[in-house]
Amino acid sequence: MTSRLDSPLLTDLYQLTMLQSYLDHGLEDTAVFEFFVRKLPAGRNFLLAAGLAQVLDYLEALHFTADEIAWLEGTGRFNQRLLDYLATLRFTGDVHAMAEGTPCFPDEPLLRLTAPLPLAQLVESRVINLLHFQTLIASKAARLRLAAPEALLVDFGLRRAHAGEAGLLAARAGYLAGLDGTATVLAGQLFDIPIFGTMAHSFIEAHDDEVLAFEHFARSQPANVVLLIDTYDTEAAARKVVEIAPRLRAEGIAIKAVRLDSGDLAEHARQVRAILDAGGLTDTGIFASGNLDEYRLREFVDAGAPIGGFGVGTRLDVSNDAPYLDCAYKLQEYAGIPRRKRSEGKATWAGRKQVYRRYDADGRPAGDCLTSADDTRQGEPLIQPVMQSGRRLAQPGLEESRAHALANLQRLPPPLQALQAAEPPYPVEISPALETVTREADARIGQP
Amino acid sequence: MTSRLDSPLLTDLYQLTMLQSYLDHGLEDTAVFEFFVRKLPAGRNFLLAAGLAQVLDYLEALHFTADEIAWLEGTGRFNQRLLDYLATLRFTGDVHAMAEGTPCFPDEPLLRLTAPLPLAQLVESRVINLLHFQTLIASKAARLRLAAPEALLVDFGLRRAHAGEAGLLAARAGYLAGLDGTATVLAGQLFDIPIFGTMAHSFIEAHDDEVLAFEHFARSQPANVVLLIDTYDTEAAARKVVEIAPRLRAEGIAIKAVRLDSGDLAEHARQVRAILDAGGLTDTGIFASGNLDEYRLREFVDAGAPIGGFGVGTRLDVSNDAPYLDCAYKLQEYAGIPRRKRSEGKATWAGRKQVYRRYDADGRPAGDCLTSADDTRQGEPLIQPVMQSGRRLAQPGLEESRAHALANLQRLPPPLQALQAAEPPYPVEISPALETVTREADARIGQP
Repeated sequence: MTSRLDSPLLTDLYQLTMLQSYLDHGLEDTAVFEFFVRKLPAGRNFLLAAGLAQVLDYLEALHFTADEIAWLEGTGRFNQRLLDYLATLRFTGDVHAMAEGTPCFPDEPLLRLTAPLPLAQLVESRVINLLHFQTLIASKAARLRLAAPEALLVDFGLRRAHAGEAGLLAARAGYLAGLDGTATVLAGQLFDIPIFGTMAHSFIEAHDDEVLAFEHFARSQPANVVLLIDTYDTEAAARKVVEIAPRLRAEGIAIKAVRLDSGDLAEHARQVRAILDAGGLTDTGIFASGNLDEYRLREFVDAGAPIGGFGVGTRLDVSNDAPYLDCAYKLQEYAGIPRRKRSEGKATWAGRKQVYRRYDADGRPAGDCLTSADDTRQGEPLIQPVMQSGRRLAQPGLEESRAHALANLQRLPPPLQALQAAEPPYPVEISPALETVTREADARIGQP
Repeated sequence: MTSRLDSPLLTDLYQLTMLQSYLDHGLEDTAVFEFFVRKLPAGRNFLLAAGLAQVLDYLEALHFTADEIAWLEGTGRFNQRLLDYLATLRFTGDVHAMAEGTPCFPDEPLLRLTAPLPLAQLVESRVINLLHFQTLIASKAARLRLAAPEALLVDFGLRRAHAGEAGLLAARAGYLAGLDGTATVLAGQLFDIPIFGTMAHSFIEAHDDEVLAFEHFARSQPANVVLLIDTYDTEAAARKVVEIAPRLRAEGIAIKAVRLDSGDLAEHARQVRAILDAGGLTDTGIFASGNLDEYRLREFVDAGAPIGGFGVGTRLDVSNDAPYLDCAYKLQEYAGIPRRKRSEGKATWAGRKQVYRRYDADGRPAGDCLTSADDTRQGEPLIQPVMQSGRRLAQPGLEESRAHALANLQRLPPPLQALQAAEPPYPVEISPALETVTREADARIGQP
């Protein structure tokens, strides 16, 4: 049942009640909404924009089925004008956005949506839902990649992701941000992401003998022998791996790696490395998993722990240190006039905006300028058209977006690449033009 | 694309690689897996079991399509034996579980699944994914209900839930745990949960005049007039509400409530209450939202803030203080023999288990006993059959589960109802029978 995520009913009720009122009173002029994040989570230096492809998928497919209209009618909440409007609704607006994989900062729009007010309003809930989550996870995954630049990094998070779609989109966002792949098979099929897998403790436990379990697995997966060795006693199991290696080698099977999943991973890795090396298994790698995050990865790298790859699960897929972003999708212009909300602590800059990014002589970002879309500033304008009159413009594929993300992460100024908050933070200047537009919006609404 | 959540490919790759090895080596005896949570999040006193209905939906519908088999074949990773097995696979096993809405504690199985090993293994990822998330959210929502027993509580979290399915299932888990409803329309349709909605700031901003916005909304939704009054100046807007009330009343429209969404909510509520009362709007309620959690709700209740209802969004839907549970789905028995994992810090109790709950003279839970399924102890056995040979047994509906949850929350011992960790925690005794089974499992595997 919950697989009906492409339903336009995946929205907040108030979108529909507001729509009815917009239609009742003829508020169907062009509206401009922007999605942005108000502030960075504690300890973070940047976010990585992600989720645009799924937003465009959603907008392209947007329509109500006859059953959905009938259900809405049956609630008794809506009038015929609204039901008629919804029955033929398609997304006909424009979208401008930052490319996926672009580092971004507070108040910078990741997406600008221009459409008749009822339409632009209706899509709010799902647009936020999709952009927020992937940006959240890509931003976390980018830190994993920066913490362990050379390691194989695989998303293992499906089981503790917040339900199924989160597991799929976390796999995508993680790969986009530079991970090497995921354990989630369906993400492999849907997004063409490399998939990785080893074995579970239950596989070992189902056998009466650990050695037999290892041999069974190796013979069934000869091309990908990764043996989980912590079910009972890690070092004892490493010695068993050395013991069976010659028999398997005689059958043409190499033991690609062993996996550690509990205890002091760095210490076990050192001991296991010594056991494997002494047994001639110098080509057998060590892969680790279990409560990992960017700080643990950095510790292993700094300590020179002999671990070549990591499975990162829960703390990636739920972004444990910052499980949400303070983001919003706000009306910035209606009927050609800039608008803004002035609620305490939640005021925004008015009007359509653009972000210009300047680079230093080494090609590293040196500062952004947030300005009005019709202003021109020095640097690269990051917000570009991606959908016109409901038709998607040519977009980079996931591999291209991933390359863009990796290149961008590598050229971030070193203080921003650190796991701790940079001081001073990355500079984002507000242009005089934007200040003027905002002042004028306030004056016009007569609420100084 | 991500709406294909009922695909059996929504699993970890290692399930399939292990399956191949199980089949290759004839490990198709009966396996027993149990799902449980290892420990409570910090500051918590209990969890509320949830998600069983979706697990049973998943198991009942489990099958591979021809396209999915073809895709698996195309990966080149799997042999014909596995592909043939998957092509005709259906869930034929038994499930025992705690009823949804039952308070539960560390190490207590929420679900026991008995099936041929390959089948029981394959479903692991999605079973955890479904049970973990709803139990996480129901446990959080129960605290909201306990914090504000009399208030109207509505889930507003879709936009910042972790993608779409999380939004839907958070709405369900929240309602199950005692909230009054959700803003998520599709959750209303799928689960028959009451839906609630007000208006957004964009609605106000789209109008040049706040009064006109209020009147437009009221005339389009005369039966449900809840006016958002914090877009510019909360108290000024409250005075506007008083000003328009007579005009609307003349049209037969009552202003049901005003909504606050920013600033010092308790202080604004007091001032707005005074303005409304002075203007004769004593029947107009105050509804509040914005960064709410159980602690904020309790503060408002303790301070006697005149707020009758709350919209709780992000902090409910992402369970911000504990965005995941330390849970597992572990092999406890294979081929009639109890098993367990002994990894450092992750050891489990062996064999099939039952939980007996004792009650005091007032009907409050007085202590649980975790024991082997074939042992008999004093109290109520919480784990009951819910699916037999792949067929679902009669199950309570969501309303019934919600009533069960509310009754259970009300009869929790008062220290457990508090928002702070109870000292001592709720007692869960390990029976001598279970200790014996576990010792025997260790002895048998020859790894003391």
